[in-house]
Amino acid sequence: MSGFPPYPYPMTMIQKRNIKVVVEYDGTDYFGFQRQPGRRTIQRELEWALSRITKETIKVVGAGRTDAGVHALGQVISFKTEGTIPTERIPVALNSLLSRDIVARSAEEMPPEYHARYSAKSRAYRYVILNDEVPSALFGRFTWFIPHKLNLDSMAEAAEYLVGKHDFTSFSAADMDTPTRVREVMSLAVGKRDELVVFDIMANAFLHSMARIIVGTIVEVGLGRRKPEEIKDILDAKDRRLAGKTAPPQGLVLMEVTY
Amino acid sequence: MSGFPPYPYPMTMIQKRNIKVVVEYDGTDYFGFQRQPGRRTIQRELEWALSRITKETIKVVGAGRTDAGVHALGQVISFKTEGTIPTERIPVALNSLLSRDIVARSAEEMPPEYHARYSAKSRAYRYVILNDEVPSALFGRFTWFIPHKLNLDSMAEAAEYLVGKHDFTSFSAADMDTPTRVREVMSLAVGKRDELVVFDIMANAFLHSMARIIVGTIVEVGLGRRKPEEIKDILDAKDRRLAGKTAPPQGLVLMEVTY
Repeated sequence: MSGFPPYPYPMTMIQKRNIKVVVEYDGTDYFGFQRQPGRRTIQRELEWALSRITKETIKVVGAGRTDAGVHALGQVISFKTEGTIPTERIPVALNSLLSRDIVARSAEEMPPEYHARYSAKSRAYRYVILNDEVPSALFGRFTWFIPHKLNLDSMAEAAEYLVGKHDFTSFSAADMDTPTRVREVMSLAVGKRDELVVFDIMANAFLHSMARIIVGTIVEVGLGRRKPEEIKDILDAKDRRLAGKTAPPQGLVLMEVTY
Repeated sequence: MSGFPPYPYPMTMIQKRNIKVVVEYDGTDYFGFQRQPGRRTIQRELEWALSRITKETIKVVGAGRTDAGVHALGQVISFKTEGTIPTERIPVALNSLLSRDIVARSAEEMPPEYHARYSAKSRAYRYVILNDEVPSALFGRFTWFIPHKLNLDSMAEAAEYLVGKHDFTSFSAADMDTPTRVREVMSLAVGKRDELVVFDIMANAFLHSMARIIVGTIVEVGLGRRKPEEIKDILDAKDRRLAGKTAPPQGLVLMEVTY
């Protein structure tokens, strides 16, 4: 046996635990999930708190790299640790260190090969529009305020064109470098309850800004500025400039990640 | 005719319009409603914005002087102005100046004798508890997190003792100077929906911290630390020290003011 690990190596490799944590956050005051030098991000807060708890330098993997201002009810992170804290006590320990707008909901030990991002089978996002005459002070941080009439029927019709396996180049941030832009949208529902218009989108994975560009484009259909059937042409063109504006971040919530 | 106004006085007194505005706010980032030197308060923000709109120095009266961190869906303010902006355009003008967490919902012109505070017949407050195992990052700013079991039946029983006309000295901040501490609680309902425990309290007027001390005391009943019938003794004693702790501000919302 040659190569890594070199001989002689310890007879018993220290087995790190692989921990999965479900995390909820209000993204308003953060520069998104992902670590960035000098900026307050969800990942940085979690890594800081986990490093204190475990007395190690913890690196966290997130299932969805939510943008600045985007929220999560069911973000999933994973990390490896040699720390001794019992897994079930991790949420309480984390919540005692984190500020009120980030909450660890649950923790469980996973097999070594589990990875919060690569093992995920699907992500579900919700986008909420406040469709009322006046904005809301209480819910403004969780909704996109649109005071104009929205045609729900044509929005639902537009949504149907996006369901299935497609190249979502037109619905992703143009700067994104990725081997393929084919993603599968498993479901995309648009509903209305009182003054809220709610999008529920599930896909195997999302390109950068994909959920928000989908919402922004369907809203333009709802406002009567585009026809539902245009969605098909936009998809086919694989050109970001043909789709609608990116909906603002505060209406978006990462609801659930499935494995 | 002697006295004020002195003779000769202008034949036509300038008639100021008396404007009522319904205001919603997220109180998290404010030191309460009332103006305080050097502090960011709801009243200061409203007076600043109204003064810009009317090009006058506007003084605002509020129906409820909510504490730091308390929210409002239906706060009512009134002010007098000689400004020329049409009344119906005031909300849009205000909302374009105010930050996202304060919203003017509507405005209407009232008779000269109308006063947001003194004309009010009743105020309705809602208090929301998040009664779950884990806190919520999204709703933490609008709820009191209590991870312990609450007995709703005994809370409802305790609430009944408070309905009616009583001296609420035991349920008000001890430092308060007021001619009478008799207030009439018209209704006080405690209900549960999923993981939320909701108090709806309506009274002709509220003493300082009254809603929050009522909630704090009823919660102690719900936790089994007090018996429902103790509420009667606490009322009779007229001693703040006998009631429970003041519930934290973020669960409280001024819902509506009736005239």
